[in-house]
Amino acid sequence: MPETSERYARGWNLLKTIDGEAGERVIASLQEVAPDLARYVIEFGFGDVYARGVLSLKEREIATVAALTALGTAQPQLKVHLHGALNVGCSREEVVEVLIQMAVYAGFPAALNGIMALKEVLAERVQIGLAP
Amino acid sequence: MPETSERYARGWNLLKTIDGEAGERVIASLQEVAPDLARYVIEFGFGDVYARGVLSLKEREIATVAALTALGTAQPQLKVHLHGALNVGCSREEVVEVLIQMAVYAGFPAALNGIMALKEVLAERVQIGLAP
Amino acid sequence: MPETSERYARGWNLLKTIDGEAGERVIASLQEVAPDLARYVIEFGFGDVYARGVLSLKEREIATVAALTALGTAQPQLKVHLHGALNVGCSREEVVEVLIQMAVYAGFPAALNGIMALKEVLAERVQIGLAP
Amino acid sequence: MPETSERYARGWNLLKTIDGEAGERVIASLQEVAPDLARYVIEFGFGDVYARGVLSLKEREIATVAALTALGTAQPQLKVHLHGALNVGCSREEVVEVLIQMAVYAGFPAALNGIMALKEVLAERVQIGLAP
Amino acid sequence: MPETSERYARGWNLLKTIDGEAGERVIASLQEVAPDLARYVIEFGFGDVYARGVLSLKEREIATVAALTALGTAQPQLKVHLHGALNVGCSREEVVEVLIQMAVYAGFPAALNGIMALKEVLAERVQIGLAP
Amino acid sequence: MPETSERYARGWNLLKTIDGEAGERVIASLQEVAPDLARYVIEFGFGDVYARGVLSLKEREIATVAALTALGTAQPQLKVHLHGALNVGCSREEVVEVLIQMAVYAGFPAALNGIMALKEVLAERVQIGLAP
Repeated sequence: MPETSERYARGWNLLKTIDGEAGERVIASLQEVAPDLARYVIEFGFGDVYARGVLSLKEREIATVAALTALGTAQPQLKVHLHGALNVGCSREEVVEVLIQMAVYAGFPAALNGIMALKEVLAERVQIGLAP
Repeated sequence: MPETSERYARGWNLLKTIDGEAGERVIASLQEVAPDLARYVIEFGFGDVYARGVLSLKEREIATVAALTALGTAQPQLKVHLHGALNVGCSREEVVEVLIQMAVYAGFPAALNGIMALKEVLAERVQIGLAP
Repeated sequence: MPETSERYARGWNLLKTIDGEAGERVIASLQEVAPDLARYVIEFGFGDVYARGVLSLKEREIATVAALTALGTAQPQLKVHLHGALNVGCSREEVVEVLIQMAVYAGFPAALNGIMALKEVLAERVQIGLAP
Repeated sequence: MPETSERYARGWNLLKTIDGEAGERVIASLQEVAPDLARYVIEFGFGDVYARGVLSLKEREIATVAALTALGTAQPQLKVHLHGALNVGCSREEVVEVLIQMAVYAGFPAALNGIMALKEVLAERVQIGLAP
Repeated sequence: MPETSERYARGWNLLKTIDGEAGERVIASLQEVAPDLARYVIEFGFGDVYARGVLSLKEREIATVAALTALGTAQPQLKVHLHGALNVGCSREEVVEVLIQMAVYAGFPAALNGIMALKEVLAERVQIGLAP
Repeated sequence: MPETSERYARGWNLLKTIDGEAGERVIASLQEVAPDLARYVIEFGFGDVYARGVLSLKEREIATVAALTALGTAQPQLKVHLHGALNVGCSREEVVEVLIQMAVYAGFPAALNGIMALKEVLAERVQIGLAP
C-alpha cells in the first residue's frame, strides 16, 4: 500500500509515543479479524489527526480523556488514553481534574466510572514499572 | 444563603471570565423557572469545579469543548463554551483541532456539528466586536 | 386488525388522558409516512406498557421525563411528556425537581435543556388555556 | 392471552430463526423477574417488527448490528445479533464491514468494541459447532 | 471546610438512608484517588439535590432508575440506585415497571440490561439479609 | 497532497453518487473553517470505507441510516443519508422499515425523529425533482 505508507509510519510512531504498550495491544487484537480497522486507527487516527500539530499531545490527550469519559461507552479506550495522557506529560492530578470536570457536563456516573478506570490504570503502571 | 456565598461569588466571577455574556444569558434564562439550577451552575460548576486550579482555564475549556462535541446533545452549551474557549486564550485554530479530533472518538457527525456550532459562534463574535 | 383492537382502544384512551392534544398531534404527524409506527406507539407504548398499572400515571411520567431529559436526544418527545406530567397531576414544581435532579446523573446541559423545554411547554399551556 | 397468541407464535419462530440459542437464552433469563418484558420482545420486537417483510432478514440484521454498535450501550444484545446476522446469511466479512463503517459515524471506539464482540461470537460459534 | 459542613452532613445522612451500604462503598472507593469527587457526590448530589423535598425519595429514585437505565452507560450506579429504590419504599414490582417502561423510550436493550442489573441486586439483597 | 489524491478522487466520486447535492453542500459548508475535515470525510469516509466493497451501497446506507437514527445526535447527517439511501436504490418503504425497526433498539423517540427527518427529505425531493 505505497500511497499510505507515510501516513502509516507517522501514525505508528505517534501511537507508540502516546499510548505505548496499551496501544500496541489494541492494534494486535484487531489483526486477525479486522486488520484494515487497525490500519485506519494508525493512518487516520494517529497519522492524520494526532500528527496535525497546533495542539500539544498533552492538550490532545486532555480532549480525548474528556470525550471518552463523557461518552461512557468506551471504557477500554478510556483506559488506553489514561495511559496516553500520563505518557505524554499529564500528571495524575491533572488527569483527575479532567475526570472530575466531566461530572458537570456528563453527570456524576461518568466521572465515577472515569475514576474507576484511572484506578485500574494506576495499578497497571505500578506493575509495569511506569509508576513508583 | 450565607454558607454558599463564597462559592457563589467565586463561581460568578469565573463564569463571567470564561463564558462572558453568553454565560450570563444562560443564568438569566433560568431565573424565572428554576433559579436554584442557575445557582448550582455557578456554585458547583464554576465555584467548586472550575476554581480547582491544577489545570489552566484553557485546558479546562479544551476538555469541555471535547466532551460537549462528543456527546452531541448539548449544542447550546457547546456554543457557550466555544465562546469560553476563545475567551480564555484558545485560538480559532486550536478550537478547530479539538473539533476535528472528535471525529476519531465520536464519529464524523459529531465533528461536523461542532464545526457548524463554531461557525455560528465566530459570526456572533464579529457582531459583538470580539473578532475582526 | 381485530387481534389488536382492544390494545389499540386502551392505548388511545391512555394517550389522550396523558399527553392530550400534544400526543394526538404526534400520531397525526405519522399517518402519511409511517401509520404503523403510530399504531405501535398506541398499542405497545400506551396499550401495553402505560396500561400495566402498579405505578401511578404520575410516577410513570416522572420516569419518562427523567429518561428523556437524561438522553437529551428527544426534545420533541420531552415536550409532549412535560405536558403529560402536568396533565396527570405533577405540579410545575415537581417537574422542575425531576429536571434539576438530572444534572446529577446526566450533567448540567441535560438539565438546562430540560428547563428550556419546560419554559416552552408552560408558555404553550398559557396559550391553550391549560394554565393561568 | 388469546388476543396476542398469533403475534407471539410468529415472533417466537422469527426469534429462533434469527437469534437461535443466543436469543432463547435472553428470553429464559427474563422469565423469573420480568416475564412480560420477554413477551414484549417476542410479540413486538419479532412478531410485529421483524415480521413486517419489505426488508430481508439479512438487511434487518445489518441495521440492528449497525445501531447497536453505534449506541455502544448494548454489548450483550450486540453479541446476540452478531450471531443473528451470521445465522440469516451475512458472511463474516460482511459483518466486519458493518462494524468498520461505524467508525465513520460513531467513532473508532464503537467500531473497536464491535470487533471485540465479534471475536467472542466467532469463538462461541466454533465451540457450538456453527463454524469450522 | 466549615462552609460546606452542613451540606456534607445533610448529604451523608441522605446517602446512607437511600443507598445504604452500596452508596458508602462508592464513597470509600473514591477516597484514595479523588476524595473531592466523593465530597461533591455527598454535598451536591445528596446535600443539595436529594434534600430539596417537593418530591418524595421514592419519586426521586424512580427518576434516577429511569434515567440511568435509559442512559445505559452507568451500570454500577444503576445497581446502587436499584438498591436505593428498594430501600426507600419501591416494591420489586414497581422497580420492574420502571425498567420495562424504558423499552419504550430507550429501546429494549436498555430495559433488558436494567433487568439484568436488578437480578444481581435482588441476589445481593438475599445475601445481605435485606430480602427473604 | 499527492499521496492522498487517489483516495480523494475515489471518495469524491462515491460521495456524489451516494449523497448527491446534499453531500456536496456539507463539504462546501466546511471549506471556510475546517477544510481538512471536509478532506477527511471524502478520503477516509468515502475513499477508504464506502469504497471497500463486500457490502452493496444499499446495504451500507441501511447501516448508516440505522446508526444515525439510533444515535439521535446527528439529524443533519441523517437527512443527508436518507437522501443517500434513496439515491442508491432503497425504496421509500424500505427506508421506513429501517426507521421503524429502530424503535426496538433505541426507543420510539429515535424512530419518530427519524420519520420526521424522512418527511422533510421527501418534501425536498419533490422540490428538486427527484420524486414525483
